[in-house]
Amino acid sequence: MMNVVEAPSSPPSSATNGSPDNADTTGSPNGTHRTFPQNPDKGPKKRIATYRHVIAIHSQVRHSCLSRDSTNTPSFIGFRNLMVVVLVAMNLRLIIENFLKYGVLICIKCHDYRKQDVVIGAIFFALVPCQLLCSYFIELAASRHAVRVIGRAKKTDKVLNESKRLWFVIALLHSIISFSGLAVTSYAIYYYVNHPGIGTLCQIQVIIVSLKSYSYALTNRDLRRAMLGSPSTDFAIPELYKSCPYPRNITIGNLAYFLLAPTLVYQPVYPRTPRIRWSFVGKRMFEFVCLAVVIWLLSAQYAAPLLRNSTEKIAVLHFGSILERGLKLSTISLVIWLAGFYALFQSLLNGLAEIMRFGDREFYTDWWNSPSFGVYWRSWNRPVYTFMKRHVYMPLVTRGWSSTAAGTVVFAVSAVLHEVLVGVPTHNLIGVAFMAMLFQLPLILLTAPFEKFKSPLGKAIGNSLFWVTFCVLGQPLGTLLYFFAWQAKYGSVSRT
Amino acid sequence: MMNVVEAPSSPPSSATNGSPDNADTTGSPNGTHRTFPQNPDKGPKKRIATYRHVIAIHSQVRHSCLSRDSTNTPSFIGFRNLMVVVLVAMNLRLIIENFLKYGVLICIKCHDYRKQDVVIGAIFFALVPCQLLCSYFIELAASRHAVRVIGRAKKTDKVLNESKRLWFVIALLHSIISFSGLAVTSYAIYYYVNHPGIGTLCQIQVIIVSLKSYSYALTNRDLRRAMLGSPSTDFAIPELYKSCPYPRNITIGNLAYFLLAPTLVYQPVYPRTPRIRWSFVGKRMFEFVCLAVVIWLLSAQYAAPLLRNSTEKIAVLHFGSILERGLKLSTISLVIWLAGFYALFQSLLNGLAEIMRFGDREFYTDWWNSPSFGVYWRSWNRPVYTFMKRHVYMPLVTRGWSSTAAGTVVFAVSAVLHEVLVGVPTHNLIGVAFMAMLFQLPLILLTAPFEKFKSPLGKAIGNSLFWVTFCVLGQPLGTLLYFFAWQAKYGSVSRT
Repeated sequence: MMNVVEAPSSPPSSATNGSPDNADTTGSPNGTHRTFPQNPDKGPKKRIATYRHVIAIHSQVRHSCLSRDSTNTPSFIGFRNLMVVVLVAMNLRLIIENFLKYGVLICIKCHDYRKQDVVIGAIFFALVPCQLLCSYFIELAASRHAVRVIGRAKKTDKVLNESKRLWFVIALLHSIISFSGLAVTSYAIYYYVNHPGIGTLCQIQVIIVSLKSYSYALTNRDLRRAMLGSPSTDFAIPELYKSCPYPRNITIGNLAYFLLAPTLVYQPVYPRTPRIRWSFVGKRMFEFVCLAVVIWLLSAQYAAPLLRNSTEKIAVLHFGSILERGLKLSTISLVIWLAGFYALFQSLLNGLAEIMRFGDREFYTDWWNSPSFGVYWRSWNRPVYTFMKRHVYMPLVTRGWSSTAAGTVVFAVSAVLHEVLVGVPTHNLIGVAFMAMLFQLPLILLTAPFEKFKSPLGKAIGNSLFWVTFCVLGQPLGTLLYFFAWQAKYGSVSRT
Repeated sequence: MMNVVEAPSSPPSSATNGSPDNADTTGSPNGTHRTFPQNPDKGPKKRIATYRHVIAIHSQVRHSCLSRDSTNTPSFIGFRNLMVVVLVAMNLRLIIENFLKYGVLICIKCHDYRKQDVVIGAIFFALVPCQLLCSYFIELAASRHAVRVIGRAKKTDKVLNESKRLWFVIALLHSIISFSGLAVTSYAIYYYVNHPGIGTLCQIQVIIVSLKSYSYALTNRDLRRAMLGSPSTDFAIPELYKSCPYPRNITIGNLAYFLLAPTLVYQPVYPRTPRIRWSFVGKRMFEFVCLAVVIWLLSAQYAAPLLRNSTEKIAVLHFGSILERGLKLSTISLVIWLAGFYALFQSLLNGLAEIMRFGDREFYTDWWNSPSFGVYWRSWNRPVYTFMKRHVYMPLVTRGWSSTAAGTVVFAVSAVLHEVLVGVPTHNLIGVAFMAMLFQLPLILLTAPFEKFKSPLGKAIGNSLFWVTFCVLGQPLGTLLYFFAWQAKYGSVSRT
């Protein structure tokens, strides 16, 4: 008959030799070791040299480590490693499949750009900064007049009111310059620059410079008001600016620094680093060049054929096929996007900051851990975020707007800029980028509760939702739609 | 002129209102908060209601969080979530692609099994346990003789020697039974059972029963020797067995328990649980059924077409295509294998253990974290591991063999069993499983250093190497080769 043995307190040592088995230390999560006799001639009792098959392998009640009965949950770190292995294997397979199907698609000579595109692109790329020069001259005139005003009359409450009309003209001129620069360049790119790459470079340049001139004008207006001491302006000028008070900051050198510095927010003075570490600059530039090449290779070899054979499916509106193509595109667009993020925000901006000895390099924070869309938009593109916060959001909130209303304005402005950035170079202002940016507002509201979750699981769910919405659904869909619109209008950009 | 500001000790508070901005707490990994004025009517100075665009956004030297200069490394948990998202997206795409290409392949009626297969399979499945019954009768005769011997002569050193010839005959009979059961069944499956599924079930059954009868014979031999008190047998019988000393354990009931218990190692007494929790049994059986269905669906819908269109590539020996097919197969074979592991070792064996009130349920430990092949083989299949340790490895080591030599024998035995298990039901004893098992020996030696690494990185590398070798290269390659051999011999198993 069988006996019921309820987890005996000590594992019975049945072996001829009492020493624990060295080779068997791994498989005992409960901290108990089975005792196998080993090397009997080394044991205390030397007379026994034969082994007996009677050891009680099953000596106590034990649970499988995946069972709920088990008291100590095992680590699952191995499955994380497995995920990496499977991801590498799956993508390696796609690379081989792509090669077997298309061969090598990368071809420097095949790229079809017109001479006109390069000429117009180069002219605009060089001319756009002149917009800031205009802002400088307007500001110079304004500051000279302000100094004259102070010289004429002693500081009174009426100093500012005296030249009210002039200040209005100044503001109007600044607005016209900022807006017309953006408008004229966008018009020229839309109608005269065929190549989307060249167009995008010029468009980024003009958007950056327009935002910079906007910030330059607003900041200097308020510094001037502070100097003139208008009734509502007894606010403290930051300590940092004291070394270069208005109007001493209105110089070509100061403006040129702002133009080249990796920021959209004008300050007369920035925190600076003591010296340029050229080795740092070299590493960042090397990273940037390598990543740019990687992005180009990935786009030409993997994304382009995928986009091309997706357009047929979109044209016949076969849902399953569109979904399949979108999912396939999601991985490659994600990799390109991550590489692009690193190339721009880490390599390029840090390299530029080092050359400019620009101190504040918080161009991004750990957006990849974002539990919600709100956190993502606050952390991934700090230059634009701080610009919007300083020059759009806070002025509205200070005037009594609700944070939701002010946030809506921020995303509306951002939506227009995104549509201009994507739609103008691709010659298709189809409004997808615009709507995608406005769609962020409900997403931010819906995912806001995840920010408050304390548990890692809650945060992981929010974070996964962010990745799915943004990288699996949003980006590939947007890319597909703009590419489809482009193909429908022009056919392929490469000679195929 | 620009001023060099070297990381000011305190962030200058430039705002009209000194309260820190609540909405801006996320983007400050350095622990500093930028100060934006907010809700001015709530501040201490109520007279200012206008906002000024002069705040020093860039107030101190800060580093990008991915830069080496940064003191606090950010968390990368978001990228783990991203990996899960990408894996799901990639596999969802493959599922859609498979559906678009093949439609639904699952078909219960299409499966082509012969009546002969089912009949022979059922007969063997029922007959195989009779092998253990033979062992029982042999053992019963031996135990009766042993009792007679003790009755005749008082305990002397010559008791055992007296019937030496009989004991030899007993051992010979046991060996013949164990071996011939395995041999006859394998022969019948190889020549008369066409369906590989039915063949595999019978083959597993016969291997398990053969190992059990081997363990039963050896354990009882040594228990008998202990009772007869031969000179070299003054070893302690485990405490656990005292409740059922030899020859009281030689009963049909005891043997039937051993036959059904989830272990390959015979003990007269096992640790038992006090009662059967039927809810536990139900859950485990439900899991088992669900996983079996999942495995069947995956095999029929995903693995089968993949294997079929891989055989053409193997036939023409196109290396790139074989690699591509192997990599595609690796994910699906991995999923099937993980599901199979859980279904067998967690669901089935735990369910069976619960029904049998079998206490020791350490059927596996956390093999998925294995930093080396040695750890893997010691932890993933504990029933076979403990059998090999008790009945093959330890006897050899006790006789003075080196651990490497004994380990080689273990893996040679295991290699033969694996080849029989895979090669017989597929009717192709091509030796791949045999060589694969022997190939584990150099792998174990090569990866042994990873066990000693203290750093998580070292262990992660070892673990990844294990996954790559085992699941990305080994299994798909083995499956492909046996499937290819099968196809070459018979053509498809389904009507397609």
